[in-house]
Amino acid sequence: MAVIIFHTISKPTYQVIHFESSDLFSPEDLKSLRPPNPIAEDFAHKGVILSGRGPIWLFGFLVHFYHPTAWLATYDPRLQGAVVVESHSPAVEVGEVIPVAKNDVYVS
Amino acid sequence: MAVIIFHTISKPTYQVIHFESSDLFSPEDLKSLRPPNPIAEDFAHKGVILSGRGPIWLFGFLVHFYHPTAWLATYDPRLQGAVVVESHSPAVEVGEVIPVAKNDVYVS
Repeated sequence: MAVIIFHTISKPTYQVIHFESSDLFSPEDLKSLRPPNPIAEDFAHKGVILSGRGPIWLFGFLVHFYHPTAWLATYDPRLQGAVVVESHSPAVEVGEVIPVAKNDVYVS
Repeated sequence: MAVIIFHTISKPTYQVIHFESSDLFSPEDLKSLRPPNPIAEDFAHKGVILSGRGPIWLFGFLVHFYHPTAWLATYDPRLQGAVVVESHSPAVEVGEVIPVAKNDVYVS
């Protein structure tokens, strides 16, 4: 089992959820994984940006976990921003790149 | 804009949705992307296994797109199987690895 640590950075319009582990991720880890729950109010009004290095299936799990949020994006260091993959907000469009300063995602 | 080609392989309990492109994927691609819709009946009873090489945000988009399906997994060639990331089916558990023969995912 990998020990997975989450860091949350709260910004006015979104929260960054960053994960990391010094262990190798295993599919088994998904069975007991409890990512941080954003405050209920924030869920409706703020987006979530996922950040971290891990397998596709870990991101898949987190995309599903955070789907009730206003919008959801994954951070892509090559784009210096986060790509919106789903949105319930008229203000944010799927495929949009939200610029994110390097300091605003937790870099271990 | 990347030309993205999807292949669907139908199996008794799941469908493999494989994507590929000879172009570089761009976030813009998500705005017009129309992945194949499984047959409505299959949506309720079968899982979907996502397969392909692409950025995290493309998988994020597809995980959201296929979330009404019975369960959803992403293929991981290192595990010779697909890891379940969400499930509405009591028969399939999140974190489970569904064995998938190499021939059952489209390898270009």
